[in-house]
Amino acid sequence: MKMKLSELAGKLGLTLMGQDRDVSGVGTLESAGPEDVTFLGNPKYEGLLAGCKAAAVICTQEHAAQVASALVSVNPYLDFARLLALITPQQGCLCGVSDEASVHPEASVDASADVYPFAFVARGASIGPRSRVFPGCYVGEDCIVGADCTLYPNVTLMAGTVLGERVMIHSGAVLGSDGFGYVETPLGREKIPQVGAVLVADDVEIGANTTIDRAMLEKTIIGSGTKIDNLVQIGHNCTFGRNCTIVSQVGVAGSCTVGNNVIIAGKAGLNDHLDIGDDVLIGPKCGVRLSIPAGKRMGGHPAMEYTTYMRHMSLAPQIPDLFKRVKKLEKELAALRAVAEEGDK
Amino acid sequence: MKMKLSELAGKLGLTLMGQDRDVSGVGTLESAGPEDVTFLGNPKYEGLLAGCKAAAVICTQEHAAQVASALVSVNPYLDFARLLALITPQQGCLCGVSDEASVHPEASVDASADVYPFAFVARGASIGPRSRVFPGCYVGEDCIVGADCTLYPNVTLMAGTVLGERVMIHSGAVLGSDGFGYVETPLGREKIPQVGAVLVADDVEIGANTTIDRAMLEKTIIGSGTKIDNLVQIGHNCTFGRNCTIVSQVGVAGSCTVGNNVIIAGKAGLNDHLDIGDDVLIGPKCGVRLSIPAGKRMGGHPAMEYTTYMRHMSLAPQIPDLFKRVKKLEKELAALRAVAEEGDK
Amino acid sequence: MKMKLSELAGKLGLTLMGQDRDVSGVGTLESAGPEDVTFLGNPKYEGLLAGCKAAAVICTQEHAAQVASALVSVNPYLDFARLLALITPQQGCLCGVSDEASVHPEASVDASADVYPFAFVARGASIGPRSRVFPGCYVGEDCIVGADCTLYPNVTLMAGTVLGERVMIHSGAVLGSDGFGYVETPLGREKIPQVGAVLVADDVEIGANTTIDRAMLEKTIIGSGTKIDNLVQIGHNCTFGRNCTIVSQVGVAGSCTVGNNVIIAGKAGLNDHLDIGDDVLIGPKCGVRLSIPAGKRMGGHPAMEYTTYMRHMSLAPQIPDLFKRVKKLEKELAALRAVAEEGDK
Repeated sequence: MKMKLSELAGKLGLTLMGQDRDVSGVGTLESAGPEDVTFLGNPKYEGLLAGCKAAAVICTQEHAAQVASALVSVNPYLDFARLLALITPQQGCLCGVSDEASVHPEASVDASADVYPFAFVARGASIGPRSRVFPGCYVGEDCIVGADCTLYPNVTLMAGTVLGERVMIHSGAVLGSDGFGYVETPLGREKIPQVGAVLVADDVEIGANTTIDRAMLEKTIIGSGTKIDNLVQIGHNCTFGRNCTIVSQVGVAGSCTVGNNVIIAGKAGLNDHLDIGDDVLIGPKCGVRLSIPAGKRMGGHPAMEYTTYMRHMSLAPQIPDLFKRVKKLEKELAALRAVAEEGDK
Repeated sequence: MKMKLSELAGKLGLTLMGQDRDVSGVGTLESAGPEDVTFLGNPKYEGLLAGCKAAAVICTQEHAAQVASALVSVNPYLDFARLLALITPQQGCLCGVSDEASVHPEASVDASADVYPFAFVARGASIGPRSRVFPGCYVGEDCIVGADCTLYPNVTLMAGTVLGERVMIHSGAVLGSDGFGYVETPLGREKIPQVGAVLVADDVEIGANTTIDRAMLEKTIIGSGTKIDNLVQIGHNCTFGRNCTIVSQVGVAGSCTVGNNVIIAGKAGLNDHLDIGDDVLIGPKCGVRLSIPAGKRMGGHPAMEYTTYMRHMSLAPQIPDLFKRVKKLEKELAALRAVAEEGDK
Repeated sequence: MKMKLSELAGKLGLTLMGQDRDVSGVGTLESAGPEDVTFLGNPKYEGLLAGCKAAAVICTQEHAAQVASALVSVNPYLDFARLLALITPQQGCLCGVSDEASVHPEASVDASADVYPFAFVARGASIGPRSRVFPGCYVGEDCIVGADCTLYPNVTLMAGTVLGERVMIHSGAVLGSDGFGYVETPLGREKIPQVGAVLVADDVEIGANTTIDRAMLEKTIIGSGTKIDNLVQIGHNCTFGRNCTIVSQVGVAGSCTVGNNVIIAGKAGLNDHLDIGDDVLIGPKCGVRLSIPAGKRMGGHPAMEYTTYMRHMSLAPQIPDLFKRVKKLEKELAALRAVAEEGDK
């Protein structure tokens, strides 16, 4: 959508320095054209300003004089993110509830919500104001989808899932699948019916094809502001605090309790029934077998303190050499001992 | 659903001690209310009995006197699982074949089966008695879905997939996708068409977003009673025996043969063409490069005997220190040798 | 479909030796019946020729005399793959655009394309000649699907995704989900809108439930001929070259640049912003933290040269023993030193 730089500056609370122009798009310092806005987030790219063709650059005061038009910001990256939200349209091309959707007569869909063709909303489910349910989504019995949520295509919410406000779930994610629980009997295993649910608080984002199992009896909980990447597995009965960051392909086994502001990097795995304190950082591919107190940074498999892990990482390629060194020591020591014993005689 | 404790006791084959009451739900020792049944599975939670508000507790004879109403069991956890199956309704709100489903005229759907809106049943496919096909499922040509199966939303069965009885497949799982097979040619790779299928025996459960590839020519086989968690990858031509347990995010490369009662813990990976014997246990994040004989317990990457692995795990954080110790030994030995050589002069 | 061996030989450019017959199927050396064609790809299976019941065997000149009918080939495995493509029907049972699909009036679908029930094609999207869009697929706004593409069931292409020709995407894959990007603010994180897209070149195959995130501003790119297995995660802004092989459950973090002919084995993980040269091989479960120059073979976590990695793998189970050896050395050295010091007195 076309907008004047001065209008954008007003909406973003920034100062326009230089010429006012119409802008309609965005780009990088290198790719932006004469109708685009770009940004200088990291001073190390300052050299690109000279050749930049953008209509305007969001930058700090320090760099404003180097460009024809600047939107002066104390945090250019943040203001560029806000600009993206202003000038790029959101995905989707529908308003209202499609005739081709299947909405149970006892479900409730807010008048301002969008429900696309081939979405299914079961008995007792409710869809809040301005929420959008894309094609192929399944909203099971008694689910509650709060206001301003987005369910991208082919998302499954099994019965009883509750979403707060502004929750965004990417395609193919599954919330409320059965936890993996069996009881051994003399005649083989029996499934433990999983009758709990999944509760997702406000401002959570959940990545594509991620799976979050329902609790056995109570709730699997994702705290507000927590962001979960693609292909993550969260087991039954887990509780995550606020503002956690769970990167792609992480697996968290059942009944873990994770605090606030915890970061779990890609492909890390947590055993079941662990207690992870606030502000913990767990490194990529880390294998966590024990609970971690608040504030710790851990890495490796098994999980170790980050400094130990970093030394471990740098030394690991030298382990074959270490075997050689120890073998050499053994030989030399044997030789010395032989000499010493010889001397004793 | 409301039920008398005496009636429940009868159905579960348990003895009711104490007062008979109406019950309608379930909970934990801490969360259960006056219409709920709970259980004491682990004696370490005995202390919670005093404050428990439940209508009844499933427990062993030993604890029955401590509560107002007890359902006396030799295996409280198992009987609680059975109680859950009795008193909690299964998911789903439909009976019969929806007008909004797409069933090919040459497909066969049993009169007692449920096919939801937006499910697609292709030519030659058949759906057995009491099986349920949720919205967004795809049942390809000539698939056979046995009796009492459940395909939760957005499950894909590619052509020729065969399911036994009582198979439960969670949302987003894909059975029968092409195996990952190419042949090198001087002009680049060519795809090897994958024309086999997937065969799933009775009482198998398959987790959300798990993928099982079809065989190149014959069958990828999942034996009866095997339970597979979420986000697992099974390559083409694999054969799994009975009652295996495959935990979340495991990956099994093509053409592996896995015996009966094998447990593969979370995130473990198996190379292709391995032979895994009966009763093998493979630990979490284990990297398996060689076949494993029956009965072995393996862990680590590379896979080692479990006792070695556990020692390896406890020693790994001390490896940086080991380097220091070896360096110190080298220095001391050099000093000693210098002294010895000095003495020789 | 039934065909004469002589006709098959003609289509494949092979020489028929022995009897001409009708054939209709395929099998392995052990499973093929009297109407099937099989192949001898690896001379180590030569012993199976004697008992083989197949109508014909694709084999090299050297083995042609051992069977009743041979299709003589210099590369039997390749010619068998081509035969599979000739005589086995492709999946799917529909021609044209289903009335039960939802195609936006401003979308464009080629007259020779198939769009199944419950597929959704959004405004501005286009589907090329002979391409097939299975049930449950979502093709977002302004997507371009080239000629001869296959989108198996429940594939999601978010807005702006571009596919070249002959692209095959397996069930449940998601292309164009938002990259995982946030900017920290004093009041918490804000999402960085992801307004780029995904671009997939010709002859790419993408596995079931794989996820490829859209770029923040520009394009996440998958080069021509690259093959991606199931459950792989590709982060935003990544660029892959031609003819790469990405095995199941690999994760590549954002902004990586991967060259041509790169092989990444199962479950390997790459940190963000890495540069991987042409012809690199990355081993299974490898953890890559640094860029890799062209031609290198790496394995392990952290990634090391393959020869170091293989030695590391064989030595790892001996690490507990190494600790014992070092302890013994320390004791012996202390004893020797005590003796030496004693001698000094």
